[in-house]
Amino acid sequence: MSAWLDEIRWTDDGLVPVIAQTSAGKVVMFAWMNRESLALTQETGYAVYWSRSRQRLWRKGEESGNQQKIIKISVDCDEDVILLEIEQQGGIACHTGRESCFYRTLENNQWVTNSAVLKDPAEMYKQ
Amino acid sequence: MSAWLDEIRWTDDGLVPVIAQTSAGKVVMFAWMNRESLALTQETGYAVYWSRSRQRLWRKGEESGNQQKIIKISVDCDEDVILLEIEQQGGIACHTGRESCFYRTLENNQWVTNSAVLKDPAEMYKQ
Repeated sequence: MSAWLDEIRWTDDGLVPVIAQTSAGKVVMFAWMNRESLALTQETGYAVYWSRSRQRLWRKGEESGNQQKIIKISVDCDEDVILLEIEQQGGIACHTGRESCFYRTLENNQWVTNSAVLKDPAEMYKQ
Repeated sequence: MSAWLDEIRWTDDGLVPVIAQTSAGKVVMFAWMNRESLALTQETGYAVYWSRSRQRLWRKGEESGNQQKIIKISVDCDEDVILLEIEQQGGIACHTGRESCFYRTLENNQWVTNSAVLKDPAEMYKQ
């Protein structure tokens, strides 16, 4: 039952860009998936990305505990971008300890930080 | 005053992925920008993308009239993704005539269309 995976237009590297948005409408992160990680995301009900820097599967929250429970998986009109609706466990998606990775906004030609650190990253990732 | 542009980590092709979201929280499309298009987006107050297929600047709405007025420009934690908050003129972002490009959702291993065509594409793009 993987015909839906065949409909995706993967990049030459076998990846697809993925946007993760909470049910409340907050875009919290952007990452990539390969076929295996998208299949696992659907099967397990939790977001599994492909880490391009580490070249391995990245079960979101595997270290921090901040998993992303899948509510809905959508695809765009030309089948080359995925949008996830998620429930963000712990309320923190960003490795900086913030709700969202998009915490800087352009104001007067400067990137200005506009949201608080909810948890010390050192606490999120310690063994 | 373009130091903010220098802070972006452009791809090897000189691009950055861009997510466009309405103020109501609807993610309506995903596209790419190069440095010139992002600068123009900020200067003009309307979204200008880089069309990879046509290899040229793409002033969103130049044909359909459905421009995207910029409310806010955000960048992510590692400075390689842009999130736009926009006001979607005409209420239609997708070339299929729908509000959003993300109009298909995975249900029982199938992509199911879940939103209506608001305008006939033939009417959107005719001369």
